[in-house]
Amino acid sequence: MSDLAEKVLHGEVLSTARLIRDLDDGIDGAIAELKILYPHTGKAEIIGITGAPGAGKSTLVNRLIENFRSRGKRVGVIAVDPTSPFSGGAVLGDRIRMQNHFNDPGVFIRSVATRGHLGGLSSSAYEIIKVLDAFGSDVILVETVGVGQDEVEIAGAAHTSVVVLTPGMGDEIQNLKAGILEIADVLVVNKADREGAQVTVQGLRRLLEMGGFDRKGWKPPICLTVGTDGTGIPELVQAVDQHREFWNRQKAQPGFENKRREEDFLRILQGQAISKLIVSLRRSGSLDEIVSRLVRGESDPYSESEKVLKLGD
Amino acid sequence: MSDLAEKVLHGEVLSTARLIRDLDDGIDGAIAELKILYPHTGKAEIIGITGAPGAGKSTLVNRLIENFRSRGKRVGVIAVDPTSPFSGGAVLGDRIRMQNHFNDPGVFIRSVATRGHLGGLSSSAYEIIKVLDAFGSDVILVETVGVGQDEVEIAGAAHTSVVVLTPGMGDEIQNLKAGILEIADVLVVNKADREGAQVTVQGLRRLLEMGGFDRKGWKPPICLTVGTDGTGIPELVQAVDQHREFWNRQKAQPGFENKRREEDFLRILQGQAISKLIVSLRRSGSLDEIVSRLVRGESDPYSESEKVLKLGD
Repeated sequence: MSDLAEKVLHGEVLSTARLIRDLDDGIDGAIAELKILYPHTGKAEIIGITGAPGAGKSTLVNRLIENFRSRGKRVGVIAVDPTSPFSGGAVLGDRIRMQNHFNDPGVFIRSVATRGHLGGLSSSAYEIIKVLDAFGSDVILVETVGVGQDEVEIAGAAHTSVVVLTPGMGDEIQNLKAGILEIADVLVVNKADREGAQVTVQGLRRLLEMGGFDRKGWKPPICLTVGTDGTGIPELVQAVDQHREFWNRQKAQPGFENKRREEDFLRILQGQAISKLIVSLRRSGSLDEIVSRLVRGESDPYSESEKVLKLGD
Repeated sequence: MSDLAEKVLHGEVLSTARLIRDLDDGIDGAIAELKILYPHTGKAEIIGITGAPGAGKSTLVNRLIENFRSRGKRVGVIAVDPTSPFSGGAVLGDRIRMQNHFNDPGVFIRSVATRGHLGGLSSSAYEIIKVLDAFGSDVILVETVGVGQDEVEIAGAAHTSVVVLTPGMGDEIQNLKAGILEIADVLVVNKADREGAQVTVQGLRRLLEMGGFDRKGWKPPICLTVGTDGTGIPELVQAVDQHREFWNRQKAQPGFENKRREEDFLRILQGQAISKLIVSLRRSGSLDEIVSRLVRGESDPYSESEKVLKLGD
């Protein structure tokens, strides 16, 4: 067995950090290590925490770390979020609060930078989840920002998706309907000591009652929290635990695990396929020729793409 | 020439709506029409409007439509945003305001639903931009939500990216640095009649002065607007016009147009490549076999993906 993968499986922090960095940098051989680790994954509970910037996600993540640590669980944290204090781009107070965890060997924190196009922000987050899983994390918290595609993707990998909102969103709550509510397993109204918290809760309740969100019998609970003083955290943890139990029952259903494996495989296949295509098109000079034809108006990108893919048959 | 493509080129609304629907539904033949339209694209000015839910993007889009219409320009609007009133998921007041434009033949409004994984939310937005361009829109406004990957992608297709913020973001402004500011050509502080607008402007100015955002001599201007009463809209329009002029000068630089064409081609190639792969894997039954091996722990998705791609050589 590879030395590096073996060290990760033995819970060595420095080797784990190195493998993650190698994956991030696309170093040759990092995927080979991941292949060795793969059979040792699938044990960790993956919890996604998502919401707009300023919703207090990192403070809640901080509280969840404390809670899981107090129960003796090893915690991995992945911040797929350029605005997270875990990524270092934080306001000072947050940074200091997180430092407790940086010195705890039971907590492994890693931030993932925003990527450019073609490849996607979250692609390396999936691999890091696997490394932290094989490393021995009992719980992996994945913090993502916003109401975009990345969150929906991460929701597919997470056992439980926690969506964090804040009071005073008024009418805007309505607008959330089509978006992030569809992926929420647990809803949190954070900063619940602020004016308008109950209005937000009522708005969410009405939305949930309108239906469309019932997934195989699970009704997303709404938790009121104040991340900064810890109010409501036990209830949040309980909601997450209950969803994990629900999820475990689902997992026993036929086809459930297959769907997750298929999604993971197709994501990896997509990434490898396009990398391979681009490398070969660049090497042969075909890409430059195609672009020249497009700029000169002699062709269109759909026909050019079809030609490339037929050649690859 | 195809009847449908010809009708789009003649500015027929119903045919244009049909082609867009066909593209959305993945109807055979829709791409063939796009190939015909492609040489007639590249004339429209594409403006991206992005920001968090509740920032007032749709109200600004509404004002921009009014402004462009008053100058006799034909306007296309694409809402890549489940929370947009253009998508129908709106609060009542917004919906009524937008209805003026729905009855104006010089305005073509189309919303794009959020897509599932593998394919991406914005993929069909690119094709709809091309259709509206060939249809004869002088300006195409693309409204996107959030601080995610989709916005960064759309920014690559837009001539000008307008990022909409609101007052009272305080410290959170700092956190935006690594994210959305990098794609902003024009910054808007909307709802500028609210408390804290100047603080937000100062925060943005400090960030811009810290550097890292200077792109070939363009410094993003900061516009203060009140979308609901129209305050600041002429200044916003002026800033967008100035960026368009800057962009036109850049366009004359060697390599500039090539890069845009290459990105568009690679995006299309990626989509076609993965669709083709998945269809062939499903048809042959290989996908089920692969997933079974993964579930039984006999293999890993990286090796399986490599095997598939080698077979396709």
